[in-house]
Amino acid sequence: MQPVRIAGVGLTPLGRHPSRTGRDLFGEAAEAAFADADVPRADVDRLCLGNFVGDVAENQGHQGPLMADAAGITAPATRFENACAAGGSAVRGAVRSIRGGDADVVLVGGVETLTDLGTPRATEALAMAADDLFESRIGVTFPGAYALMARAYLEEHGGTREDLAAISVKNHANAVDNEYAQFRREITVDDVLDAPTIADPLGLYDSCPVTDGAAAAVLVSESYAAENDLSAPVNVTGSGQGGDSLALQDRADLTRTPAAERAAADAYEEAGITAGDVDVAEVHDCFTIAEVLAIESLGFYDSGGGIRAAADGETTADGARPVNLSGGLKAKGHPVGATGVAQLVELTRLLRGDHPMSDAVADASVGVAHNAGGTVASAVVHVVEVDA
Amino acid sequence: MQPVRIAGVGLTPLGRHPSRTGRDLFGEAAEAAFADADVPRADVDRLCLGNFVGDVAENQGHQGPLMADAAGITAPATRFENACAAGGSAVRGAVRSIRGGDADVVLVGGVETLTDLGTPRATEALAMAADDLFESRIGVTFPGAYALMARAYLEEHGGTREDLAAISVKNHANAVDNEYAQFRREITVDDVLDAPTIADPLGLYDSCPVTDGAAAAVLVSESYAAENDLSAPVNVTGSGQGGDSLALQDRADLTRTPAAERAAADAYEEAGITAGDVDVAEVHDCFTIAEVLAIESLGFYDSGGGIRAAADGETTADGARPVNLSGGLKAKGHPVGATGVAQLVELTRLLRGDHPMSDAVADASVGVAHNAGGTVASAVVHVVEVDA
Repeated sequence: MQPVRIAGVGLTPLGRHPSRTGRDLFGEAAEAAFADADVPRADVDRLCLGNFVGDVAENQGHQGPLMADAAGITAPATRFENACAAGGSAVRGAVRSIRGGDADVVLVGGVETLTDLGTPRATEALAMAADDLFESRIGVTFPGAYALMARAYLEEHGGTREDLAAISVKNHANAVDNEYAQFRREITVDDVLDAPTIADPLGLYDSCPVTDGAAAAVLVSESYAAENDLSAPVNVTGSGQGGDSLALQDRADLTRTPAAERAAADAYEEAGITAGDVDVAEVHDCFTIAEVLAIESLGFYDSGGGIRAAADGETTADGARPVNLSGGLKAKGHPVGATGVAQLVELTRLLRGDHPMSDAVADASVGVAHNAGGTVASAVVHVVEVDA
Repeated sequence: MQPVRIAGVGLTPLGRHPSRTGRDLFGEAAEAAFADADVPRADVDRLCLGNFVGDVAENQGHQGPLMADAAGITAPATRFENACAAGGSAVRGAVRSIRGGDADVVLVGGVETLTDLGTPRATEALAMAADDLFESRIGVTFPGAYALMARAYLEEHGGTREDLAAISVKNHANAVDNEYAQFRREITVDDVLDAPTIADPLGLYDSCPVTDGAAAAVLVSESYAAENDLSAPVNVTGSGQGGDSLALQDRADLTRTPAAERAAADAYEEAGITAGDVDVAEVHDCFTIAEVLAIESLGFYDSGGGIRAAADGETTADGARPVNLSGGLKAKGHPVGATGVAQLVELTRLLRGDHPMSDAVADASVGVAHNAGGTVASAVVHVVEVDA
């Protein structure tokens, strides 16, 4: 199959944008991606877009053609929705499109506006990623669902709230120099432990924020990159997706995320790598426990073995395999439908050497993006590699 | 590229299902498709799902894994959303997946529940397919938008309300024997002309109904069909997609639908056919004028030349090239996210010879499905062909 090159990437500042629409944010991210890519808009063959709850947040469905308009392109557009894995699903659609020979140039992007809803309505909107009949209606929100997973994990494998807090501390530290991050300040383990409890054992600082923002990337075929003499040293070499029952009640085990395990296995196989080859990862840390489950599902640790990775310094910026150098969802922010695309943006810059945290991975050649939807009922994993 | 075979198809009765959820309906359609296909669920590699406004209608996003659960499969699932072209977009995703070698067996489906919302809220939900800022907020609903297109067309090319009415009369006549259709009764031109005006010049009987329902199809690779000795005589041989500005105000010409023209051109090229080769078509007649624009965009008529096709008997069941033998959206019903998949279901049965209207196309070998989103800001066209 054809390799897929990342010609350019763009991101808006992530955070609160109360006066801006989704189309406005996406136009900015796309503009940045085109400027970075040096690819003319007229060459774009299609747009793959991730968005989760635009219907609710802006009364706006059918965002594919709307965001094509905002990006200044006329190509056919499709929205991919897999809850918080919408962005990763759009990336997968774009990669498949180029690999299948349908397109030479694909704009992939994601966008979400949530903060205008206010926390109660945003929480309700996000809960649409869970099973309305068997979860949301009986009061399960996402902090609650992940708290159930955290409890099961800690009971089964041990580990402490301090171990979880170390993940949040790490991700906040990583975000300090990230100009796009929502929270650019360090916090301490005590800050995390002392913060209000949201859903026991998870507190406010175990949880990612509600975020507005957009991300975009211009993906091109190997042949297009060569013909146009593009500088596009980072490639998507593997893509995998997994699925699981939507409702937690239907899962055999709350301490593992088999959808992500499958996505990782398929992505690694396609790329011809193993977990041991991965130098750096951006993973879906919507809650601290989610990062633990993510790094285990990616095969960096056995099940039950990842809880102390941050506390022991293995996944910190100066660790052997840094995780969420961007700040992750926790500190960079979680613009839901854009998150999976933003992960690709961060990894591209990290591996190209133009990210504020690139020095932490100066010798890195292989990165992995892990994007999850709901309680990992959907998972998408991509492997990216930089030319030697 | 690998051909894609349609191993089995399933449909729920279309209409009002006030006591049923989307998952319930989709489970029934999937069950029918698997029974028809004689393919074990365990062989399914992925689910491609079309759904438009589940977030609003059932507070339910993330319907990919939910509908996988309902269908009794564990494969990775993705929701495709392009407003009323969601189903066709899901079909396209499924076809691409098999052609690209990612999957041998894909369940493609669509589902929508709308009638429980009641007409005012359903109308608002459907309006999310238009531009919220520049159309919906100033009162443009879909009957209004298509009325603008109808006025422009009739002013530019001539034609009468009677010509439009003939389309509705034809589609109602076709639906009489369709056991899945919402309206199984004939109507007259006078019925259409005498019905209440919805948005001048369109009346109630120029407009498709609000519909609940689900559709599913099991698509397989040529090699899977051969290895498993499946009877799957109908193939998808071409797939095309086009896009346009979301808002009508940004279009150069309201009397044409270039997104559909492009989708058709690409699908025909892929299939190696021309418009003249098409024997039968299922097109997106959300309003009578939409069928006119559809058959022109498919190249059956020049722009301005399709207005009398039904009145002149060219697209009736006994005409040279029947259009909407199922009854179309007008009489079969329009379960939005399922509509594009339902078109594939109808064409498959028509070409296999097991549709109540198969006698009308006994010698047919090539069918086309035309599925549109919004005011054709999205369009997806598929060509299907039956083995000789």
